[in-house]
Amino acid sequence: MMQAKNTVAQTIARTHAKRMVLQELSAGQINIILKDIANGLLENTEGILKSNQKDLAKMDRNSPLYDRLLLNASRIQSIAGSIRKVMKLKDPCEQLLAKRKLGNGIVLEKITTPLGVVAAIFESRPNVVADIASLCLKSRNACILKGSKDADYTNRAIIKIIHGILKQHKLPDALVYLLPPDREIVSQLFTATKHIDVIIPRGSNQLIDFVRKNSQVPVIETGAGVCHTYVEKTAQIPMAVKIIVNAKTQRPSVCNALDTILIDEAIAEKLLTPLQIALGEKEVKIYADNKSYGLLKGYPFLVKAAKSDYYREFLSLSCAIKIVKNLEEALHHIEIHGTRHSEAIITSNKKIASDFLKLVDAAAVYHNASTRFTDGEEFGLGAEVGISTQKLHARGPFALEKLVTEKWILRGNGQIR
Amino acid sequence: MMQAKNTVAQTIARTHAKRMVLQELSAGQINIILKDIANGLLENTEGILKSNQKDLAKMDRNSPLYDRLLLNASRIQSIAGSIRKVMKLKDPCEQLLAKRKLGNGIVLEKITTPLGVVAAIFESRPNVVADIASLCLKSRNACILKGSKDADYTNRAIIKIIHGILKQHKLPDALVYLLPPDREIVSQLFTATKHIDVIIPRGSNQLIDFVRKNSQVPVIETGAGVCHTYVEKTAQIPMAVKIIVNAKTQRPSVCNALDTILIDEAIAEKLLTPLQIALGEKEVKIYADNKSYGLLKGYPFLVKAAKSDYYREFLSLSCAIKIVKNLEEALHHIEIHGTRHSEAIITSNKKIASDFLKLVDAAAVYHNASTRFTDGEEFGLGAEVGISTQKLHARGPFALEKLVTEKWILRGNGQIR
Repeated sequence: MMQAKNTVAQTIARTHAKRMVLQELSAGQINIILKDIANGLLENTEGILKSNQKDLAKMDRNSPLYDRLLLNASRIQSIAGSIRKVMKLKDPCEQLLAKRKLGNGIVLEKITTPLGVVAAIFESRPNVVADIASLCLKSRNACILKGSKDADYTNRAIIKIIHGILKQHKLPDALVYLLPPDREIVSQLFTATKHIDVIIPRGSNQLIDFVRKNSQVPVIETGAGVCHTYVEKTAQIPMAVKIIVNAKTQRPSVCNALDTILIDEAIAEKLLTPLQIALGEKEVKIYADNKSYGLLKGYPFLVKAAKSDYYREFLSLSCAIKIVKNLEEALHHIEIHGTRHSEAIITSNKKIASDFLKLVDAAAVYHNASTRFTDGEEFGLGAEVGISTQKLHARGPFALEKLVTEKWILRGNGQIR
Repeated sequence: MMQAKNTVAQTIARTHAKRMVLQELSAGQINIILKDIANGLLENTEGILKSNQKDLAKMDRNSPLYDRLLLNASRIQSIAGSIRKVMKLKDPCEQLLAKRKLGNGIVLEKITTPLGVVAAIFESRPNVVADIASLCLKSRNACILKGSKDADYTNRAIIKIIHGILKQHKLPDALVYLLPPDREIVSQLFTATKHIDVIIPRGSNQLIDFVRKNSQVPVIETGAGVCHTYVEKTAQIPMAVKIIVNAKTQRPSVCNALDTILIDEAIAEKLLTPLQIALGEKEVKIYADNKSYGLLKGYPFLVKAAKSDYYREFLSLSCAIKIVKNLEEALHHIEIHGTRHSEAIITSNKKIASDFLKLVDAAAVYHNASTRFTDGEEFGLGAEVGISTQKLHARGPFALEKLVTEKWILRGNGQIR
């Protein structure tokens, strides 16, 4: 055990020591490495699939994790495609953020610079290794990856290819390091404040909570989304129905999917009549408050909502409904139940829309659109590490442009204070 | 105890619930409140000084904390002056950071918005209450302050004036809340992830470590500075002497003061001859490595450096010296011993300067200038909360412009995904 501890600490320290070599590479050199990795993955499709089979053989076919873990040729093509997209993104480093000449003649610049060492802890999905590695290489960060046991053969097959390409370019393995999939190792990341600059947990809420509770290294949370859509009384009913159905059913398993519909009492009946037909077609289960329960009598997938249902991130074809008196009550409900992720209002009243957009405390706020757009690609940022629900550093889609920090550079000719 | 716990949790929740009223105030209204607070402090100078006397009476006159705690009319004027400076800063909220029309017609904006609730934990200095309160009000953040027992009478006198002004403006006390100075209360801040957006510890390294180790709420560290000045072999000797003396002696008790001088061996003797005269005049104690010890023989305040001395933040008229072979060795020494705060190179070689500025991992890097400039006011940012030595969100001087987060606002006309 002592042996293993030393090895992990040494691994982290080595990655930290080597991180600077990435800063000496030009944007062009980095892109060649990324291209080589994408090609390497495609050329080694067969080998990756064999390793993936070994992982799948350990897993129950009926587990929902099975499909997330499964790779095939087209999924590997999609992973390679993501890397090519990262290649095309603008270099996030050495961007000039500010420049001024101080009164004493010093020229001050604020530029972007790599974070240094990024640690990512994640569960099953095998695309994460390639995604995080390519985003980190592009932003000149070394990375330390910790996957799950479930996906370990697959992750190691992908890392082996990345290491092969790094070697071709005379770069050390340590720049993209996959830790063994042992749970105990995680706690060694939490205290490595000298060698890791940020920890990003990707996966279940339990994982994220565990990391937040225990890490002394700064964490960027990519947390749960309990997302509301509030239909205000001046909403266009057909638009409201269309947006709600999309936000709930287009991909129910993701964090930006709708969870609770808030409806102004003045239009509750007018909205629920067409809405229940549309949601019924998709077999959406509705957890209704007393008032809407009355209006939805006869709906085939109807349940009375408990208080706790309004705190649920459903991640499935279920939603909650609550009738509210007005904007104020809607805002209050969101304030109490929301997770600061994505919130929408449907209204034709511009003043009410702007009050909602201002007063709702969330990463992304929408007027007359589906919350499903909260996504790095959709926002034009490229691949994302996740959706941050915290407020420091990155909020909302956490993408390449936030894998950097700032540095103040001051050039003088002898200035003293 | 249970009672006290509930009260603190309720206080924090109430501050969180009230925070939004600040967002409804215009920049003009906020500035009037700040002006009234500055005037209120001046008008109540006598009362504040009486309270300050009560705190001072509890303290040993010979303690270094005594002077930090001491207020007088001119120090109160300076606190009021700082508030007036904050008034004049640009409104940090609702700044447009990005705007684009997505392919589907949605208009996306990224704007700055308040963090929400800022908690600050600090030690003796009574100016912190007024500083943090004014920066938070300006940026529309509610704040929860936790001072030390030493300064409690003084802190409460200042808060009473702030509360009086808030009341005049029909704003709730909860927006600027001073907790009792009990140590146990701090841990209740650490778990208030739903109601506090950031914790800022200001004070000793022990305090900062304690907060970082225990807080689940994101922390911005304003940590220690072990600052180096590297004199490269092409440096102009008189400039190097002037900068070193300034960086070490102008205000030795602060984090951006020089700790270790690294000297290229090629110019060690040439530099040390005038440098020891200049440092000797200021009675600076030197912890010297073997080589420089030999060259400094006869210097009256000379000690042999232990390895551990190179990790010291001296905060006094002491420094360490090490002779190095070249840039590479200097970089390596800083990498191992630095705290990512402020680092300087003195050189006439532009290529070497630019390598140093690029490869040193620190918040502020200097060419031919004193590290003493790392400061919000000096950088043109206004009053600072502290100097951040971490990389997320704020790096270096952490001032008004970083007391905000981002918000994505999307306006559509029925877009679905």
